[in-house]
Amino acid sequence: MAEHMSAEERLIARHFRPLATDPGALGLGDDAAMVTPPAGCDLVLTTDGVIAGVHFFPDDPPESIGRKALRMNLSDLAAKGARPVGFLMSLALAAGLDETWLSAFAAALGADAQHYRCPLLGGDTDRTPGPLSISIAAFGAVPRGKMVRRSSAKAGDSIMVSGTIGDAALGLRLRRDRDLAVRWRLPEPLGLKLQQRYLLPEPRNALAEAVREHASAAMDVSDGLAGDLAKLCRASSVAAEIDVARVPLSEAARAALARDSSLIETILTGGDDYEIVATLAPARVAPFADAAARAGVAVTAIGRVVTGQGARFLSDGKALTFAQSSFSHF
Amino acid sequence: MAEHMSAEERLIARHFRPLATDPGALGLGDDAAMVTPPAGCDLVLTTDGVIAGVHFFPDDPPESIGRKALRMNLSDLAAKGARPVGFLMSLALAAGLDETWLSAFAAALGADAQHYRCPLLGGDTDRTPGPLSISIAAFGAVPRGKMVRRSSAKAGDSIMVSGTIGDAALGLRLRRDRDLAVRWRLPEPLGLKLQQRYLLPEPRNALAEAVREHASAAMDVSDGLAGDLAKLCRASSVAAEIDVARVPLSEAARAALARDSSLIETILTGGDDYEIVATLAPARVAPFADAAARAGVAVTAIGRVVTGQGARFLSDGKALTFAQSSFSHF
Repeated sequence: MAEHMSAEERLIARHFRPLATDPGALGLGDDAAMVTPPAGCDLVLTTDGVIAGVHFFPDDPPESIGRKALRMNLSDLAAKGARPVGFLMSLALAAGLDETWLSAFAAALGADAQHYRCPLLGGDTDRTPGPLSISIAAFGAVPRGKMVRRSSAKAGDSIMVSGTIGDAALGLRLRRDRDLAVRWRLPEPLGLKLQQRYLLPEPRNALAEAVREHASAAMDVSDGLAGDLAKLCRASSVAAEIDVARVPLSEAARAALARDSSLIETILTGGDDYEIVATLAPARVAPFADAAARAGVAVTAIGRVVTGQGARFLSDGKALTFAQSSFSHF
Repeated sequence: MAEHMSAEERLIARHFRPLATDPGALGLGDDAAMVTPPAGCDLVLTTDGVIAGVHFFPDDPPESIGRKALRMNLSDLAAKGARPVGFLMSLALAAGLDETWLSAFAAALGADAQHYRCPLLGGDTDRTPGPLSISIAAFGAVPRGKMVRRSSAKAGDSIMVSGTIGDAALGLRLRRDRDLAVRWRLPEPLGLKLQQRYLLPEPRNALAEAVREHASAAMDVSDGLAGDLAKLCRASSVAAEIDVARVPLSEAARAALARDSSLIETILTGGDDYEIVATLAPARVAPFADAAARAGVAVTAIGRVVTGQGARFLSDGKALTFAQSSFSHF
């Protein structure tokens, strides 16, 4: 019967049905999918999209584009302490994207769906006269009432962050201006590492359970540590003090910063980190660090929650000021 | 603290937070939303998007655009027998859409969210260099295992459809070529009715419970009755015979068809109906019609499920052939 299928149906059957491994997806052959949430669990819902020319470069490899969109959403689930359940994808295909492109896009996305145990549940595919865009809605499960929020940080909590901060923002600058690698005297492998962090986030889903067990509040760092911490502080009606010297940096970021100290602003406000920032009661810091180590994720204490308003970044006893604390596409 | 919020945060707080009436939305102030599915229920998930210039006209009123996107998804939930629970929205705003536009867009969308009891649970807002696009993921609830599928129609079932077919497709043709109203000798109010059906679908959520109680299979008619019935037949490994004379038409569609009999192809294949086509065991036809009448939705028997392949549209004993049986943006 394939000869009677529409072009959209054929495209879905060929490229995306293999990703729909959950029985609730009904092989992408129905109007909707079904999810039976695990007993005693809440479903956690998040949505994030990417647009060519805004969130990625139109000539980025097809293997990274879909995965970036999925991983942005997986990062939200991780920060909320949720285990991935599946995702819906709305795909607006720009002119000129052919079968070869789609095949590479879908295969890489499928590898991620399998790796993160987050199968495709359904989707919607259209042609657009505009840029390629991908909108994903992802679902996770947490034991009832246990979703970790932004709004529950307490004065006296420690603030910890996963991985390293600022790499993707520096990588984006390198991608836009290759001369910077020379100015920063970056060996090529380090420059590539920074660019890779922008191209393809590494969400911290391995840390989700530790966050859920121990954090008083958490969020993912996607729009810059400074701006995102400010959001968490507003939501919790508290302030944060960060010791800039303790913010974890990669070897590449340290090298660049050593050549140009003004890069600290890019590092702290640039965005696309997809790390997790969490607040923890003092007694939870050591167990969280242990659980993180078992999960294979580095975590670093960078400051503390205090009464007041705003997130202050302290360097040599003085608070840094930023031209723009948070990355924004507006 | 509003002065410290980003432009995106301000926009969300001003225009979209009022739509986030469910406590699980956390006032749109977190990375994710929470849904506690009703006890004993599956969650039904669907996603559909609209792009300016593809699914609507860029100069359509802001009051209709967001509602059209939401209602397309509500129509999928209705056809699956599901009660709406809420939705996520990913919004890519084109240049030039100002606060006045956004305010009208959000207010109308909020009225629909309230009317259909489908609150906004979360979202994502970006600026795009391309056309305005809106992607919605909507969630519904059905008693466990009771989602109505496409794949369960049986030979011997009756085929019934809600409302009237073809109005939106005729409305789209009128919108593109105003001279057609003269050629079709359509009084202005009838022409406007057809255009309104394209501008703003009327999903049949009132029929959801009757579909769940009585239908053996169902889907929403969004890409044309002919093509959508063919999909249902493929999914169920059956064939359909439709009596074209029994397909319910509005007064306006009947008037246009009387002037130009070739319009039957537009009517049966044009799409954007957002009606429900359901198959029913013969004993369920009368109870379904009764339940539909109580819900205030007209339903009409148009044919029967038989063994074989494909959907045949019979007119004066002969099967119609269509140049393209299903509307496709590809």
